[in-house]
Amino acid sequence: MRKTRKKIGTPPGSVIFTGNQKVEKVQIHYLKYNANQFEETTQDNHTALTLHESKEELVDWYDVRGIHDTELIQTIGNTFQLHPLILADVVDTQQRPKFEEYENGIFLILKALNFDQEKQAIDREQIALFFREGLVLTFQEDHTDLFEPVRKRIYSGKGKVRQKGADYLAYALADNLVDHYYVVLDAIEEQIELLEDDLLENPDSSSKGKIHQLKKEIIRVRKSIAPLREAISRFSKSDNALIKESSVSYIRDLYDHTIQIMDSVDNFRDVLNGLQDLYISEISFRMNQVMQVLTIITTIFVPLSFLAGLYGMNFEHMPELHFRYGYFVLLGVMFLVAAGLVLWFKRKRWF
Amino acid sequence: MRKTRKKIGTPPGSVIFTGNQKVEKVQIHYLKYNANQFEETTQDNHTALTLHESKEELVDWYDVRGIHDTELIQTIGNTFQLHPLILADVVDTQQRPKFEEYENGIFLILKALNFDQEKQAIDREQIALFFREGLVLTFQEDHTDLFEPVRKRIYSGKGKVRQKGADYLAYALADNLVDHYYVVLDAIEEQIELLEDDLLENPDSSSKGKIHQLKKEIIRVRKSIAPLREAISRFSKSDNALIKESSVSYIRDLYDHTIQIMDSVDNFRDVLNGLQDLYISEISFRMNQVMQVLTIITTIFVPLSFLAGLYGMNFEHMPELHFRYGYFVLLGVMFLVAAGLVLWFKRKRWF
Amino acid sequence: MRKTRKKIGTPPGSVIFTGNQKVEKVQIHYLKYNANQFEETTQDNHTALTLHESKEELVDWYDVRGIHDTELIQTIGNTFQLHPLILADVVDTQQRPKFEEYENGIFLILKALNFDQEKQAIDREQIALFFREGLVLTFQEDHTDLFEPVRKRIYSGKGKVRQKGADYLAYALADNLVDHYYVVLDAIEEQIELLEDDLLENPDSSSKGKIHQLKKEIIRVRKSIAPLREAISRFSKSDNALIKESSVSYIRDLYDHTIQIMDSVDNFRDVLNGLQDLYISEISFRMNQVMQVLTIITTIFVPLSFLAGLYGMNFEHMPELHFRYGYFVLLGVMFLVAAGLVLWFKRKRWF
Amino acid sequence: MRKTRKKIGTPPGSVIFTGNQKVEKVQIHYLKYNANQFEETTQDNHTALTLHESKEELVDWYDVRGIHDTELIQTIGNTFQLHPLILADVVDTQQRPKFEEYENGIFLILKALNFDQEKQAIDREQIALFFREGLVLTFQEDHTDLFEPVRKRIYSGKGKVRQKGADYLAYALADNLVDHYYVVLDAIEEQIELLEDDLLENPDSSSKGKIHQLKKEIIRVRKSIAPLREAISRFSKSDNALIKESSVSYIRDLYDHTIQIMDSVDNFRDVLNGLQDLYISEISFRMNQVMQVLTIITTIFVPLSFLAGLYGMNFEHMPELHFRYGYFVLLGVMFLVAAGLVLWFKRKRWF
Amino acid sequence: MRKTRKKIGTPPGSVIFTGNQKVEKVQIHYLKYNANQFEETTQDNHTALTLHESKEELVDWYDVRGIHDTELIQTIGNTFQLHPLILADVVDTQQRPKFEEYENGIFLILKALNFDQEKQAIDREQIALFFREGLVLTFQEDHTDLFEPVRKRIYSGKGKVRQKGADYLAYALADNLVDHYYVVLDAIEEQIELLEDDLLENPDSSSKGKIHQLKKEIIRVRKSIAPLREAISRFSKSDNALIKESSVSYIRDLYDHTIQIMDSVDNFRDVLNGLQDLYISEISFRMNQVMQVLTIITTIFVPLSFLAGLYGMNFEHMPELHFRYGYFVLLGVMFLVAAGLVLWFKRKRWF
Repeated sequence: MRKTRKKIGTPPGSVIFTGNQKVEKVQIHYLKYNANQFEETTQDNHTALTLHESKEELVDWYDVRGIHDTELIQTIGNTFQLHPLILADVVDTQQRPKFEEYENGIFLILKALNFDQEKQAIDREQIALFFREGLVLTFQEDHTDLFEPVRKRIYSGKGKVRQKGADYLAYALADNLVDHYYVVLDAIEEQIELLEDDLLENPDSSSKGKIHQLKKEIIRVRKSIAPLREAISRFSKSDNALIKESSVSYIRDLYDHTIQIMDSVDNFRDVLNGLQDLYISEISFRMNQVMQVLTIITTIFVPLSFLAGLYGMNFEHMPELHFRYGYFVLLGVMFLVAAGLVLWFKRKRWF
Repeated sequence: MRKTRKKIGTPPGSVIFTGNQKVEKVQIHYLKYNANQFEETTQDNHTALTLHESKEELVDWYDVRGIHDTELIQTIGNTFQLHPLILADVVDTQQRPKFEEYENGIFLILKALNFDQEKQAIDREQIALFFREGLVLTFQEDHTDLFEPVRKRIYSGKGKVRQKGADYLAYALADNLVDHYYVVLDAIEEQIELLEDDLLENPDSSSKGKIHQLKKEIIRVRKSIAPLREAISRFSKSDNALIKESSVSYIRDLYDHTIQIMDSVDNFRDVLNGLQDLYISEISFRMNQVMQVLTIITTIFVPLSFLAGLYGMNFEHMPELHFRYGYFVLLGVMFLVAAGLVLWFKRKRWF
Repeated sequence: MRKTRKKIGTPPGSVIFTGNQKVEKVQIHYLKYNANQFEETTQDNHTALTLHESKEELVDWYDVRGIHDTELIQTIGNTFQLHPLILADVVDTQQRPKFEEYENGIFLILKALNFDQEKQAIDREQIALFFREGLVLTFQEDHTDLFEPVRKRIYSGKGKVRQKGADYLAYALADNLVDHYYVVLDAIEEQIELLEDDLLENPDSSSKGKIHQLKKEIIRVRKSIAPLREAISRFSKSDNALIKESSVSYIRDLYDHTIQIMDSVDNFRDVLNGLQDLYISEISFRMNQVMQVLTIITTIFVPLSFLAGLYGMNFEHMPELHFRYGYFVLLGVMFLVAAGLVLWFKRKRWF
Repeated sequence: MRKTRKKIGTPPGSVIFTGNQKVEKVQIHYLKYNANQFEETTQDNHTALTLHESKEELVDWYDVRGIHDTELIQTIGNTFQLHPLILADVVDTQQRPKFEEYENGIFLILKALNFDQEKQAIDREQIALFFREGLVLTFQEDHTDLFEPVRKRIYSGKGKVRQKGADYLAYALADNLVDHYYVVLDAIEEQIELLEDDLLENPDSSSKGKIHQLKKEIIRVRKSIAPLREAISRFSKSDNALIKESSVSYIRDLYDHTIQIMDSVDNFRDVLNGLQDLYISEISFRMNQVMQVLTIITTIFVPLSFLAGLYGMNFEHMPELHFRYGYFVLLGVMFLVAAGLVLWFKRKRWF
Repeated sequence: MRKTRKKIGTPPGSVIFTGNQKVEKVQIHYLKYNANQFEETTQDNHTALTLHESKEELVDWYDVRGIHDTELIQTIGNTFQLHPLILADVVDTQQRPKFEEYENGIFLILKALNFDQEKQAIDREQIALFFREGLVLTFQEDHTDLFEPVRKRIYSGKGKVRQKGADYLAYALADNLVDHYYVVLDAIEEQIELLEDDLLENPDSSSKGKIHQLKKEIIRVRKSIAPLREAISRFSKSDNALIKESSVSYIRDLYDHTIQIMDSVDNFRDVLNGLQDLYISEISFRMNQVMQVLTIITTIFVPLSFLAGLYGMNFEHMPELHFRYGYFVLLGVMFLVAAGLVLWFKRKRWF
């Protein structure tokens, strides 16, 4: 799962990109707004970026897509006086979700999960979010616009985002990411339900592999959501002055969502463990049935074959062979033996 | 399990109904009472509702059945100055049970469980409950009157509900919902006991499916009751002035009930896991028995059949075939072999 | 397990008996004592009971046996000003053990476990205990005198009970109930040890049922003891003025006993899970052995039988049949095949 | 495991011996020392013991071996003013390890584990330890000198024990007992490693019994060490004036040892559970192999035997029997069938 | 795993080496630096070591490699006034990772894990680290320079280490050790992925052993990392004046790394448990398939062989034998029986 790793022994706070470079060029989307106005620019030129913090009563939002260019990240860091550890975390895509308060702002690492319908797989993208009064910075490697719904609300002035400050924007962006978890949960749930139907109807060779795959997927989602819940919890309980009173109940609501997602994930895990047990039960049950068929057939015919073999012997003196109705008597005996065994199995409820 | 989901990217606090519309028309039951008087009206006209907060020393209880009409919910919200997040939660039927204190009142999400005797299934209904001094609002989608027993107590003046305020009514409604969990528990217990008898007598193909179904049911009930317990705990420990001293011991009692229910659910889960183990043991034991029968029969007759086959060969020179009592001697040998094997199995306690 | 249930929708605090009526008549044992004197009366007349709180420096202990008569319970409640929820809990025999402080006294729900040697089963009886300065009330349904040893100590003046107050009596009664748990533990331990011997010697059909029964018993005992421990913990930590300084170390000692019992119960649970694993291992091992026997026999004789069958064919032209020593050569070959297979199995350590 | 039990219903604080009497006579080893001097006496006369607390600046250590003589214990209790519950705990050998502070001293219950090389079993002995300024009392039933190394350090003046007070002696004695746990752990570890080798090489009938025995042993050791850790934790965190500042870091070090032992025990438990899984895997794997051999042999010879049987029939009109090369053709067909099946099994990787 | 153990009964604080002596001579690397200068000396003469604390504004770092020479350790202890328990811990290589504050400095026990590519095994080395203002001491037994990257940063002046004090050096050394855990994790992950591919393609005899080995490895890594996380947590939360404000966020970052490692280890454990389940499922599934083949072949041929045997009997009077087309009719019957059974198995989805 892990690809590149920070080189061992580099000084702490070194800005070293540890993910897969997904894009060629870095894009920076800049949006400046308040209740009355908004302005947007998009730059994708590495060299001549304009970065500044507007000193007016506006929220500045820089959305940086492409974090493999560590020099650029350091330029941004210098421009906005970010702590070296923030920069190191931004480009280290192996981070756990976390919430940290620095002297001049609040820093969040979040994981965006997205269910890719085509590949039937879960995409993960690390989002770093920094905000302080009047400034929000977001960082991701991929170009996909994960924050489109929020951006649209800013354009249209719908919702409260234009009326509120940087803390509310940060909340709205986090909320938007958490919303995507529900889609992932629905996709997993659907897969679990398909698997369950399979298992109850006709468990085959692939079922055990599928259970294992789903279990691993759940473990991976859990690994994102568990620390995310913790981070959002600290976000919601922080008494940092940057988080305004009016935003607190929204963040608390977001926290409720993360708990709900965690509940569902644990629920899925329990259901999957149940399916594992069901699969083992099913296989055991089938083996028992196969064994019963084998035993019934063998047990009925083995004595009969013995009798047939007995009278197939070539001894000179075997009186029965010369009896007039010997053959028919034997057939009758065979029938009685078979019938007796069948009755015995019936009583044992073997069929 | 989940049906409709809040559209991703909608602004937080959007009032979007996420459940299944179960009823055509919204009904609003209005009840106004104090120790001396009570008055009741039922409205089911969408358009011309009368909503107001009586300023006298009375408790107003609006019981809204039908929450798919989000415009109406917003009208109610405006009339009683409810926080936008409350309205969003009221119509989002995927909420976890929770307890929240707002500036102008206390808000609870509860889950009503009801065992449907006919369908042999558990019905779930989300109940939102808001109260402040003199006002109680309850919201549900279905028309079924879940609160009938409380309503009757108000009519008859039995119990303490008429003497007390909105906080006691809120408690009484929650208590009434929790009471229904016991019925659900009894139904589950009965199913577990039937299953247990089945397993000990004759475990068959359907048993493993039934265990799995019950486990899933338990997981689902647990998902309702665990956060409910937490919500009631916070209800019982809240020092909000809206909750009067005299109600506290009642709410604490309600909390005890939720713990007791949780205990029973965990108990059932343990018993079900025990049944799962029992099923596997049972199947293993039966396979072992089947194997023993197979092995006994095969082991006795295979050597005998070999002997019979031996003397069925057509070699020209086989002296035994010409002995006078060759056949009878062989029969004797066969008997001894069989008896020896039977004794050996006896000593091995295989039957 | 549950028998009658409080009717759903009855007002909270309703005094409704939910257990099985075990006795015809209610008996009330009244004991009044201090360090110098004691006096005892027993009443079993429903109608003309004398109830009063002696105002002297004495401890009054009313031991009520028979709680199905809810009217009587309410009379007692009125006489001693008990909170309505106390009365409701006294007659609801489905309560969890708990410790509650009310304004005018302390209320405990306890479970008495008793091992019935005859039925080889555990009897459960709910004991409600209320005490305040100079007054102790105990309630149970059955007539059996669970508190006999304490009563005898009062008669004889042995131990400290006569020198101390109501709080010490309450402690002594609880301690007496907890003592009986040890007997139950011993009985369970004995059953586990018998089962273990069975499993290691000759696991049979009944073993898995016995493991399941014991597991269920343990779950049930655990359900009593876990909340009991919690209740006694709160008892021992309470700073209520009713509990005198000198009694605290005794109650702490009682708390140690409940922890020890809980430890033992958890210990038994682990041992039982170990037995379950042992049973499954044992069955698997036996099946493996049975399979080996089957395989050895079959593998040796099937090729031999084939050879015998081959020379039992009736082709006109089978040169071997006419060789002088054909038969003896074949016997030799058969012996070599059998010996080779036996050696092969030996090397594979199959026997 | 439990032998005698405190008689139910005896007053709390009754001094009743509940263990097995292991020795005839009680021995009391008395040691009095300070940095400059020491004096030792050993008494084993029941009747004429000399007990006193030296009032000089010395540490008095009474090491009582033999606690079945409850009268003597009470005499000691009276001499040193011990609380009745301390005396009851000293003679009740079923106690959990615990740490308790009384008004006039600190009381510890500890369990000494010792691995008996000869019996290959773990011996347990309960040690009760009471200390206050200038006085240490230790109680055990067995005569074995568990504290020899400490005693020797006192004689020789090595280590700090002679320079320090009663609290350090108490610590040194507890530390000495905890040291023995490491020997027990080493013995268990060795047994686990032997078992592991057995399982990987040749799991047989006895392995499952051994796993079960070791699991039970671990459960029992855990039962001693878990409360011991807790007791030592409370010892290390106590702010009782009897424990001097300079001893605290030693006790904290002792606490670290108990954590380390607990870690190892949990570690062993996990390893044993892994061995259990390994055993089941191994048995399953072997059964699968046995089944494959059986299936291969049967599947190859059963069709061949059928063919042989076919041409062993005695029908008058069977043209094949009269073909010149019928027999050899059939042998060829049989060879082809067998070869085909062998190839099929090869492809299925069955051998 | 444990080799030598502190002799039981030695006084606490005894300096006794408990590991394996890995090197002949002790080496002491001494490094003295500040922002402007640095000086380095290496001594490996046991007898004539120069030890002193430079009183200038410099950081002194003594890196002691070889701790079996307990006399030397005591000399170092005396020189720098280390507490006896520190010295005892330095040479006891069985310590748990821990963080302890002493009066004159902070003491850490850490475990260095290193994946040895050649032996495909994890090496463990215990590192003891003591620091106070201007002094850092590190102790290990092996000569391998685990701190090379930090040393290089000091030479080159890269990173912040030269600008900062002893606390930052201590942090940088700990961080350097923790970095190596990632390499170990990567190696384990690779092994797990190889094993997973094996299991899904062709589970064989060695798989169960490999799962068991990996589980044990994980348990061992967990045993190092769990207390390490705890120690680093206490390091990051300590308010000791020795840890400067500016270092705190770095230590907090290190703590985040330990949590992340712990998460991964737990994750691996869950995945391994999943593999164990998968293996059992796989074996069960294969046995079921083998059984089906066996049952199909046996069930088809056993009745046919019986029929062949029947007409191989030598009764004088068996009319069928004399029918003109008896043989061919029988062949037809046999074909029908076989076809019917094949159809039946098809319907049962056995192949």
